Amino acid sequence: MKEWKKNIRMVEPYVAGEQPQFEHMIKLNTNENPFPPSPLVTEALKNMNTEKLRLYPDTTSDILVSALAEYYNVKKNQIFVGVGSDDVLAMAFLTFFHSDKPVLFADITYSFYDVWANLYRIPYKTVAVGEDFKLHKEGYYEENGGIVIANPNAPTSLCVGRDFIEDILIHNKDSVVIVDEAYIDFGAETALPLIEKYDNLLVVQTFSKSRSLAGMRIGYAMGNEELIEALMNVKNAYNSYTMSTAAILLGAAAVKDVAYFKNNIKRIMDTREYVRAELEQMGFKVLDSKTNFLFIHHEKIKAKELFEALRGENIFVRYFNKPVIDDYLRVTIGTKEQMQVFLGFLTAYFQNPFVAKKG
Amino acid sequence: MKEWKKNIRMVEPYVAGEQPQFEHMIKLNTNENPFPPSPLVTEALKNMNTEKLRLYPDTTSDILVSALAEYYNVKKNQIFVGVGSDDVLAMAFLTFFHSDKPVLFADITYSFYDVWANLYRIPYKTVAVGEDFKLHKEGYYEENGGIVIANPNAPTSLCVGRDFIEDILIHNKDSVVIVDEAYIDFGAETALPLIEKYDNLLVVQTFSKSRSLAGMRIGYAMGNEELIEALMNVKNAYNSYTMSTAAILLGAAAVKDVAYFKNNIKRIMDTREYVRAELEQMGFKVLDSKTNFLFIHHEKIKAKELFEALRGENIFVRYFNKPVIDDYLRVTIGTKEQMQVFLGFLTAYFQNPFVAKKG
Repeated sequence: MKEWKKNIRMVEPYVAGEQPQFEHMIKLNTNENPFPPSPLVTEALKNMNTEKLRLYPDTTSDILVSALAEYYNVKKNQIFVGVGSDDVLAMAFLTFFHSDKPVLFADITYSFYDVWANLYRIPYKTVAVGEDFKLHKEGYYEENGGIVIANPNAPTSLCVGRDFIEDILIHNKDSVVIVDEAYIDFGAETALPLIEKYDNLLVVQTFSKSRSLAGMRIGYAMGNEELIEALMNVKNAYNSYTMSTAAILLGAAAVKDVAYFKNNIKRIMDTREYVRAELEQMGFKVLDSKTNFLFIHHEKIKAKELFEALRGENIFVRYFNKPVIDDYLRVTIGTKEQMQVFLGFLTAYFQNPFVAKKG
Repeated sequence: MKEWKKNIRMVEPYVAGEQPQFEHMIKLNTNENPFPPSPLVTEALKNMNTEKLRLYPDTTSDILVSALAEYYNVKKNQIFVGVGSDDVLAMAFLTFFHSDKPVLFADITYSFYDVWANLYRIPYKTVAVGEDFKLHKEGYYEENGGIVIANPNAPTSLCVGRDFIEDILIHNKDSVVIVDEAYIDFGAETALPLIEKYDNLLVVQTFSKSRSLAGMRIGYAMGNEELIEALMNVKNAYNSYTMSTAAILLGAAAVKDVAYFKNNIKRIMDTREYVRAELEQMGFKVLDSKTNFLFIHHEKIKAKELFEALRGENIFVRYFNKPVIDDYLRVTIGTKEQMQVFLGFLTAYFQNPFVAKKG
């Protein structure tokens, strides 16, 4: 092995969910929003002056941060924006988890937490969820170098209440507690009001789900001014200009269309409950979801088989080849029409005598 | 001090060059291109379908990478793209400089190298430039954990030839050598052909200068497939989706308009030589520049005073409050008209009896 190769930071290659590119597919595998972004986003794009792109963007992303500050009724210096919530979370790991004590997060949760910990050589310890996939707050009472809670959790779709988060904060005054609220807008209770009371709480959200802007890469964190300042310092020591002029303008436009946002969320939640009822009728176990996806299991059909059968029809859902959750599928809520095709396939699949049964 | 604050990664706050926002200013302080991006970029923006923004972008940035591969005649797996060359360089520091030996770079060079080294706790050692600001290759012969050369160098504008870079490669087969070519298109010689011969060479370039797209945040690295794969692994362990759909489409459009690109560069280089001649006539020392800026010094006027006088007229240049270079100004080459205003101000300034003289 050549000498220079010995100095390479080795990381386990992370493979993101597949991004199939078929004209007539039904894509229910990466929790994207089935509806386009707000018409205000299209207008902002149309009005964008490409001449300005010769200039560096505003390092403070002021137009975007101001729109968020107004919407959430927080101060501008309580907001940090980044290139998707993955960028924000990774930056937060690097900034706040600079300790020898292990960071705690659930053993079944967003798959990037251990990847970031490994990337930055941050010690961590997973806290077991129950057999019902529920989080146990007592697991977060032990000494730690930081805590991360996805709420609602991925890929289980389960959420906890604000009282649960507050209990964890009460027991962890010495660590930064990150609550990753990527799916919060689909019916769960945000921890945001707690940032005024707990200066060690960082709430992270994204434009990729409820705001239909996964393609523009915008995420944000909200917390005490000191937390945000520390994040800004690390970010500015990494790249002063992470947010493009396009992301700033289009993101701000998306935030401003509150009515469109609320209507889309309602449609997705309504479709979710419709799909849940239909799936339960077919004998599926469907976890309680406050997200834009369902985490489902069927006693009589192996998840992997169903995943492949769906795939054969260009219907893409997410299958995790991992212990404990390898007999579940994560199904994004698409449009009602898409979900009807999905449900129609399942109905046909159950009627087909060649269906491979378990056992 | 609260306990959680002790676990914060402390970094010295990095302050980017000021971004004044006046309607009628002449902005010659951050080396932006005075010309708008190619008309193909405007067309790509106009044709962009906001509906697609609900989807995650292509993790491989294939449209952009393919355009670069074609332009530079390299393979797609020899290219890595990121959110500006700062993102690419920071990622390269994290990936390749994972050693206890010091990374070497010049003591007068791009101001982010030591910032990244500090951020990632990478040991480093600066190599002194000569009194003429020239790089000395012998300084890079000692044992090291990696090498970074900005060519042309910032903020001095001086460049070295490909033979200089090859000499450093010959003496450093055991380290990754990064050549930061942010300004390469303005007349210097790229090290790119050497990537076929030296598998430890990474060449980094940007869309922010010669391609007039600072506002979109696009940078890229080219090198041996193994180097690129290692970078991709670290990047995917950080954020699978760093490049927005907009950046991918607009970046590709910019690369494709070769005639526009070449014409703009020629205009900037012509203006640069015109400004140089004028400045020399006024008694300025002007370093040899293969960039879109000039690094200038005058025996009779303090750089800081001139900087402030220009600022009073809404003409912004860059002054560095740092040892050795604190009596120089870095002046971006704007349009010929802008530079005539700049030169006109200087002429008036020299004639004004109230000008503060040194000593």
